[in-house]
Amino acid sequence: MAKQKISAVPSIRRLPSYLHIIRQSKDEGNEYISGTVIAQELRLEPIQVRKDLAITGIVGKPKKGYPVVALMAAIEHFLGWDRVHEAVLVGAGNLGTALTGYPEFQYHGLNIVAAFDQDPAKIGKTIHGVPVFSLETMKEQVRNLKATIAILTVPSAHAQAVADSLVSAGIKAIWNFTNVKLKVPDEVIVQREDLTSGFAMLCVMMNAKGA
Amino acid sequence: MAKQKISAVPSIRRLPSYLHIIRQSKDEGNEYISGTVIAQELRLEPIQVRKDLAITGIVGKPKKGYPVVALMAAIEHFLGWDRVHEAVLVGAGNLGTALTGYPEFQYHGLNIVAAFDQDPAKIGKTIHGVPVFSLETMKEQVRNLKATIAILTVPSAHAQAVADSLVSAGIKAIWNFTNVKLKVPDEVIVQREDLTSGFAMLCVMMNAKGA
Repeated sequence: MAKQKISAVPSIRRLPSYLHIIRQSKDEGNEYISGTVIAQELRLEPIQVRKDLAITGIVGKPKKGYPVVALMAAIEHFLGWDRVHEAVLVGAGNLGTALTGYPEFQYHGLNIVAAFDQDPAKIGKTIHGVPVFSLETMKEQVRNLKATIAILTVPSAHAQAVADSLVSAGIKAIWNFTNVKLKVPDEVIVQREDLTSGFAMLCVMMNAKGA
Repeated sequence: MAKQKISAVPSIRRLPSYLHIIRQSKDEGNEYISGTVIAQELRLEPIQVRKDLAITGIVGKPKKGYPVVALMAAIEHFLGWDRVHEAVLVGAGNLGTALTGYPEFQYHGLNIVAAFDQDPAKIGKTIHGVPVFSLETMKEQVRNLKATIAILTVPSAHAQAVADSLVSAGIKAIWNFTNVKLKVPDEVIVQREDLTSGFAMLCVMMNAKGA
C-alpha cells in the first residue's frame, strides 16, 4: 500500500516563513497584514501567497488584508502547532545538540523530552536542558514518556536499527536527519531532512547568475 | 529590482534524492535505471520523476530507462556539482560543526576551507579537519581564499552584521541557517535553510493520519 499523498507540499513548506513574518508584523503592532507585503518580504508572487494561505481556511479582507492574530492561529492550527508534540532525540552529537537548542522549535509545540546516545561521556548530562540517557533504555523510556516523534541524528550505519527499535516502542513519526532511506511500516511517518536539497537550490541560483 | 526567479524549485529540491538513489543503483552494478524504480523508492509518481529529470536535459530509453552514469553526470552538471565550490563556515558551534562533518557534501563539490568564530577556545583548533580562525580575520581571509560561498551558522543577533562583512569581502552566495531574513545586495544569493519547514511537513502528515 502506498503512503498517503500530501498535496500542496511546497505550500506547506512555505507556511513557517509566513508565520515568521506575520509574527514580526504583530510584534510591530500591526493588526492586519496583506498578502502583498508577505510576498515582498519573501520575494514571492502575491497570488502564490494568497493561494498558500487559503489552505489554512482563512480569507483576507479587501484593502485591509489578513487579521494577524487570526492568521497566525489559522496557520498554527493547520500545522498542528497549537498543541504540544512530545519528542525524543536519538543521537546527541553535534547536529542533535544543535537541534535541541534550535530557537524556533519552542513556538511550534516541539517538546524534546529526552535524548539518547551510546557514548558514556554524554549519558547523564544534559544538552540545552534535555537529559541524555543510554540508548539501551530508549525503548522503555519512549513508551513511558508517551513520545510520538523521534528526531534521528545517529550515524547512518545505525539508522535502520534505531528506527526499528523506535517503531517497536510505538513512535508515530520519525524526523530523519540521516541519509538512509528508512524502511518502516506504512503507518509510521518519516520526514527525511536532506540538507543537500538546499545546497542544490543555492548552486542552481549561482549558476543562473554566472557566479 | 526583484531577484531572478528560479523555476522548478520543487524539481530542483528533489534532484539530490534522485542522485542518491541512482548512485546506489550504480553501486549495485546496474547500467540502467527506470523512472518508475526511482519513483517507487521515493514514493512519487513516475510522471513526476520523468518531468523532474527532463530539466537536466537527459531522456530515458523506452523499456531500458536512463543510463546511470550519464544520468548522474547530467544531474551533477545541472546542479554545478561537477565543479568545486570553495566555502567558508561562519559560526563554529554545534550546527556549524555538524555541517563540516556532513558526509554528503564531499560528493557535491562543497569544499569548506575555513571556519570563523569569536570564541577563543575554538580559534586555532580544527573541526572535522577545517581550521577555525578568529572572526576578526574573516574579511581578509575570505578574499585570500577566493571563497564564493559562506555557510552562516552564527547566533541570529549577529547574522546581519556578519553577512554585511561577508558581502564586502566578495562572497557571492550565503547559505543562511539563521532565522534572520538577511538584507543583501541583489547580486548576492541567499538560500535560507529553515528547519521548521520540514517539521511543518511532518506535523501535517501526522494530522492527516490522526497520529
